[in-house]
Formats: sequence, structure tokens, C-alpha cells
Amino acid sequence: QSSVTLWGRINTTVESQKVENQDRKAVVQNNSSRLGFKGTEDLGGGLKASFLLEHGLNSDDGKATNSAFWNREAAVQLSGSFGAVKLGRWTNGSYFATADYVSMHNHDTGTSSDALYSGVGWTEANKVGYFTPNYGGFTAEITAHAGEGVDKRAFDLAANYDQGPLHLGFGYSNQGDANQYAIRGLYELGAFTFGGYYQREDIGTGSKPTRNIGRVSAMYTMGASEFHVNVGGTESGGLQGANGAKQYTLGYNYNLSKRTKVYGFYTAVDSTADNKKGDFDSLAVGIRHNF
Amino acid sequence: QSSVTLWGRINTTVESQKVENQDRKAVVQNNSSRLGFKGTEDLGGGLKASFLLEHGLNSDDGKATNSAFWNREAAVQLSGSFGAVKLGRWTNGSYFATADYVSMHNHDTGTSSDALYSGVGWTEANKVGYFTPNYGGFTAEITAHAGEGVDKRAFDLAANYDQGPLHLGFGYSNQGDANQYAIRGLYELGAFTFGGYYQREDIGTGSKPTRNIGRVSAMYTMGASEFHVNVGGTESGGLQGANGAKQYTLGYNYNLSKRTKVYGFYTAVDSTADNKKGDFDSLAVGIRHNF
Amino acid sequence: QSSVTLWGRINTTVESQKVENQDRKAVVQNNSSRLGFKGTEDLGGGLKASFLLEHGLNSDDGKATNSAFWNREAAVQLSGSFGAVKLGRWTNGSYFATADYVSMHNHDTGTSSDALYSGVGWTEANKVGYFTPNYGGFTAEITAHAGEGVDKRAFDLAANYDQGPLHLGFGYSNQGDANQYAIRGLYELGAFTFGGYYQREDIGTGSKPTRNIGRVSAMYTMGASEFHVNVGGTESGGLQGANGAKQYTLGYNYNLSKRTKVYGFYTAVDSTADNKKGDFDSLAVGIRHNF
Repeated sequence: QSSVTLWGRINTTVESQKVENQDRKAVVQNNSSRLGFKGTEDLGGGLKASFLLEHGLNSDDGKATNSAFWNREAAVQLSGSFGAVKLGRWTNGSYFATADYVSMHNHDTGTSSDALYSGVGWTEANKVGYFTPNYGGFTAEITAHAGEGVDKRAFDLAANYDQGPLHLGFGYSNQGDANQYAIRGLYELGAFTFGGYYQREDIGTGSKPTRNIGRVSAMYTMGASEFHVNVGGTESGGLQGANGAKQYTLGYNYNLSKRTKVYGFYTAVDSTADNKKGDFDSLAVGIRHNF
Repeated sequence: QSSVTLWGRINTTVESQKVENQDRKAVVQNNSSRLGFKGTEDLGGGLKASFLLEHGLNSDDGKATNSAFWNREAAVQLSGSFGAVKLGRWTNGSYFATADYVSMHNHDTGTSSDALYSGVGWTEANKVGYFTPNYGGFTAEITAHAGEGVDKRAFDLAANYDQGPLHLGFGYSNQGDANQYAIRGLYELGAFTFGGYYQREDIGTGSKPTRNIGRVSAMYTMGASEFHVNVGGTESGGLQGANGAKQYTLGYNYNLSKRTKVYGFYTAVDSTADNKKGDFDSLAVGIRHNF
Repeated sequence: QSSVTLWGRINTTVESQKVENQDRKAVVQNNSSRLGFKGTEDLGGGLKASFLLEHGLNSDDGKATNSAFWNREAAVQLSGSFGAVKLGRWTNGSYFATADYVSMHNHDTGTSSDALYSGVGWTEANKVGYFTPNYGGFTAEITAHAGEGVDKRAFDLAANYDQGPLHLGFGYSNQGDANQYAIRGLYELGAFTFGGYYQREDIGTGSKPTRNIGRVSAMYTMGASEFHVNVGGTESGGLQGANGAKQYTLGYNYNLSKRTKVYGFYTAVDSTADNKKGDFDSLAVGIRHNF
């Protein structure tokens, strides 16, 4: 008999949200809650077979987050000294290596997640991926998405380097004429952690197909407390359209344990468009419980 | 690593049902089957973090009971000596404290569930709740539902008192101009258990916005056997419309264990409307297995 | 506390598929992946209560395979020396006793599954079934599907006999005027296994309501390797329509363990219709991991 591991995260906030010119409203908000099933079989000689199923759920209304029930991952993998080969559905490595990595205050979920990062070339389903072994802190993955006559073939490339306090990342994705790449750095300096990324988007069409996006973030840790600040900006162009935008987030986490925190944040997206179009802000308090 | 507990109930009957003037038909029927995942982390100092996910499923056709997969519960909770605070989705305490409590023969599920109880003010998603500790048998909970610009804010209040053979409950819910309240009692007397509730509904609109609803039930236990009778009635008015109705249920349970029973019941809803409109009856045999 | 067993299968291929006159395309393909939950309670005296929940999922895009989440099984069962009684949803025994049994190379899943077997009379939901005990290698089951005013009552009958190297099966299903029956044999001869079935379909309507379907398959095992060939054919008529068809499959499996294999196959469906209508072929490599 095999053994299956269950794991997940329920992360829920109560927020006061303001969307553009609408009335401010109270909202119970999901922040990327999930339930996962996984298991690994040792095949001998360093070879292992694994399966991974990860369901994203709305912790506020109980619905599946996406029309695909296993919208976060549905995969089978063979791994060994050569690295790993994976088939199925999963989230792009180029994202985890860059935008997700520096969004430290609430692991890039919910209303304070990165609103400006470009998802051009983003695909999740029908993928084949190769993951390298760890070479002295360096890892990489490359993924191909089969269009299957429905959409275009897509590729995703991610690289990560971790050495002591230094953490670097690179991500690239492409589908048809559209592509994006980003570089990310993160440095730990005592109680402080500093991170940032720069991204270049090119949607391959329109009068201004490209734009530059950037973000910096910092965390200060004191006992069970974490203080966060996170600021991003984007030019106009590409998927962003005619206006640029900025996003500011201030966050405070109190870690009740390694698995559970209570926290609060204020986040605001400020577009250059008129009449508060595209603007959003939220003041939130919440609980995140990993299991 | 945390530990996740899986639990649930599969409860299925084979029934001969008659709906209004239609032909009598054989039906394989689900009775609120469910699958749950839960876990608790001890944070020290009496503080605990918990998650609760409860999926309602149709044990007859395999579908999710509701468009929300986790339609019975999706919540995170912090509890301690102060009681508990819960965020997410769950079923109203006002219902468990009243109608559900006295529907002993099949825990208020399936075709013999209470067809007359008023669900006005009923909300499940996007809630914040506070649960008191147990004060000498007395517990209470209060819940607020955020409308989020989609529907109206709603409140739910429940109180329960348990002292030896006496069990009392109160429920109140309100949304906009509509509200309901109910009081419930249940008394154990040797092999007999007697229960009942009285409910008042006010939908806040129309020519007859209010109605009174009531129900009594009794159980006689003999070894592994339980004999049940359950009778309810409602006036016309409110959500019930122009006609009143009665519901009669006779049930027999044989407990194969604490977790598993085989059982049968006959239930009939009899409306005062003409031409059997609103009428229903069913003769059922089934299996309920808790796990 | 009960104990719940989790189990399942992730089976994914990468294929080069050609559908009729369309362009050949690369596809990441699910092959009947699934996740199951089950548990059994010993009630004493040989009596047992069980539940079974089996979800079919797409290992390529993460979606549920069917609009019923528990599309493979949702059932409760009482079993003892008398056999077993089961209520709910599950797959027809007549299929497992015949077509599924001889489709050895990839347990009748994905694009190389049996494309010609007749599913007339096939029903899954709202069933009551009786399963015999094992009488010297002989087992049988009979199932009734309740139409519930939506479709017609249906019946399914399966019988299996296993004695040493000989394995025989029979399946029959019927719904309204339509029915099918099939007989199956499988024989183990050292490193070889030979199987086959013959099926007769009668849809009860049209100018040619009946057809004959047949299939033979063989496996040769050498160490961890399995070599497979599987050939089927159908006449025109019945559900097949105006044209007959053949299907050829060659397969190779390498068993990394009892639970995990890597494999490849080529399968082709060749219809007698003009302009490649109804034709399909695929060259596939994949991983199947049971857990």
C-alpha cells in the first residue's frame, strides 16, 4: 500500500475594499487557499515516481477557484540523478522564480498579490517539463505546452540560484508572438530581507507592444513579527493598455507558529487613468493556516 | 507534518416516491452524504488553529450537491479560552439549534427532512463568526454575512443549553427586512426522547408576511432499534404562500453499529392546495454509513 | 475513529495524434486517471459496511473528467456471507467482465481504449446492485438502474469465472428496447496471455439494429517488459451506423515496479467510411503511476 500525503493552506481575510468609484464594501476574501494530495514511490537506483494533485479553493464561498478542479497541479513525475520529467498541469516556473518570490508578505495571494506582473505566455494545462538537478545552488526547468489545435504552443523557462544569503531568479515565457522575461534578486541581511524584480513584456502586436514592469519589497523580522513593504510599477503598453500604474502594500504578520499567522495589510493600486478607473485599495486582517 | 482527518457519511435510500399528480416512481436517493477534511494545530497557551472543509455529494449520481464544491464548510478558525473566531463558509447555527436538532430519525436529510422550516435569512458564504466557550452547558454563536455588493448583509444567532436530559435551543436569522426566530426543546425520558420547535417567520413584504411553523418528534429506543414519529405543520403566509401544509414521518432505524444503520421511513407532505399541488410522499429503505 | 484509504492512478501520455483529415498534432493525454477514497467497518458476524468514492480526473488539464465529480463511483455497501448489496453510482460490471478484461496493454484507457465495444444499455447513476459470493471461482452481479422519470429503467448482468490459467466472463445490459451481450475468454500460457471477446448489440430500432463486435489480444512478458497486440473489429449497424471499422494496437510496457510503468503504443482506428471519416491514429509514450 502506498502512502498519500494531504496538505494545504486556508488563508482568509476580512477586508474593506474600494473598487474604482464604487462604494467601499466589506468582503470576506480568499487568498489562494488550496488542498493537495501527493505521494512518492522509491523505484530503486535513485529513481522515484511521484504524483501531485493540488486543488485551489475559495475559502470564502467554498467554490473551486477555477473550472479545473485541480487547477494548481495535476501531474505525474519521474525523477532521478538526471533531474525530473513531469507531465500534466502546473503553474509556470517563470512566475515562481520572479514575481512570486519577492511577494513575501502574503506569498502573492489575494488582493495584495502583484497586480502588475505580466502573465503573457502563461499556460498551465497540457505540459511536459524537464527539471534539472541542483548544481551547487543552481536549478532550472523548461516546459512545453501542447496547443492541441486549441491554442498556440508555449514555452516556459525558469532558473534559480541560491547561495547563502543571495537568491537570484530568471523567468521567460513565450506563446506565439508574445513573450516576457524577468530577473529577480533577493538578499538576506540579518533581520532584513530585500527583494526585487524587473520584467520586460512584449505582446508582439499593437502600437505599443512592450512595457517595463518592476517591483521592490522588504521585510524586517522581530521575534514572531514581520513588517513588510512592497512597491511595484508598470509603464503603459502591452497588456497594460494606455495607462501605467503603481501598487503599494504595507503588511504586518504575527507568526503564531511556523504554520499559522494572523496578519494585516493595506494595499493600493493607483492607475494613471482618469476617474479612478483601474484603482483599487483594501485594508485587510486575516488568518493563514498551513496544514 | 500536520495530520489531516478524513471523515464523512454516505447515506442512500431506495424510495417509492409520489410527487403531486405524477406517476409513482422508484428513486435511488441521496440523504445529505458528505466528505470532510479537518485538522487542528495546538499553538500553545490553549490557543488552537483549525481548518474545516466539508463537501456535500450525491451518493446516488456522484455529483457535488451544490455548485460550491465545499458547500457544507470551508473555514479557518482560531480558538482558545475566549471561544472561537471563524472565517469562511458554513451552515447556519440557527438551523442546527432548532429544526435539525429535533429531526432525529435521519438527521434532517433527504426526502424526510423538514419541508416546512423557514430558511428566510439563510446565508452560507462569506461569513465571520464568534462562538462562545461552554458556560455550564450554555453555548452561543453569532455570525455576520458580508453582502459584498451582491446581496444584503445578514446575521445569524444561535444558542444551545444542555443540562442532563434537558436540551434547549434558540435560533434567529435576519437579512434585510426578512427574519425568523425559533425555540426548540428536547427531553430524554428513559427509552423515550421528545422534541419540538416553534418558529416565527417574517419576510417583511406582501399581504401576509408572517407565519407560524411548528414540529414535534419522538423516539423510542429498544436495543439496536429506534422507532420514530415526527409531525410538523405550517400556516399559510410568508415564503409558504397561499396554502398551509402538514408533514408526517414514521421511521424505523436498526443500528448495526454506532456508525452504520439500516432503516426505513414513510414521509408525507400534505398541502391545503387543490389537486395535490405541493403534495409529496415517499416510502424508503436505506443504509447510512458514517466514517 | 474510522480509517479512510486513499488510492488512485495518474496515467499520462504524450501523443502524436491524427484525427480524420485534420493536421497531425501533439497532445498531452489523460488515460483515465483517478483518485479514490474507501473504508470498511467490521460489524461482526461476517457483516461489513463499506463506502467507495472514486473521482475521475484529467491528468492533462486538471479538470474533473465528467460533470459528476465522483463519476467512477459513489456507493455504500453491506456485505457478508450472502454476498453484497450496493447502492449508488458505479461502472457496469458487464463492461469489466468483457471489453475491459482483455484490454491488457493499458487497462482500456485513453486513445488506445476499445473504440468499438457497444455501450448500449450503459448506465451509471441511481443503481441498486447485488453481488454474489465467490463460488469456487464463479462470481456474478446484477444491477438495476432507476429511471426516476428521466430515462428508462436499465439492467446490467455480469458473470466471471476464474480457475487457474482460465478466465471467462459474460456481460449483458439492457435499457428499453436496446441490449447487448458479450462473452469473453482469457488464457495464461507461460509467458503468453491470450484474450478475446465477442459482443452482440441490438439497439431495437432502425433498418439494421444489430451488429457483431469482436476483439482479440495477446501479451508476452519478459522480465519487466510486456509486449502487447490488440485487434478489434465491428460490423456496420446499430450504434456504429453505416460503416464498419477495425482497430489495431501495438503496445510496449516497462514495469519500473508493480505500481509504476513507462510505456508506448501505436493505435489506429480504420473505418470503412470515405475520406478518412471516423479514422484516428496515435503514437504515444507515457507514465502510469498507481498509488
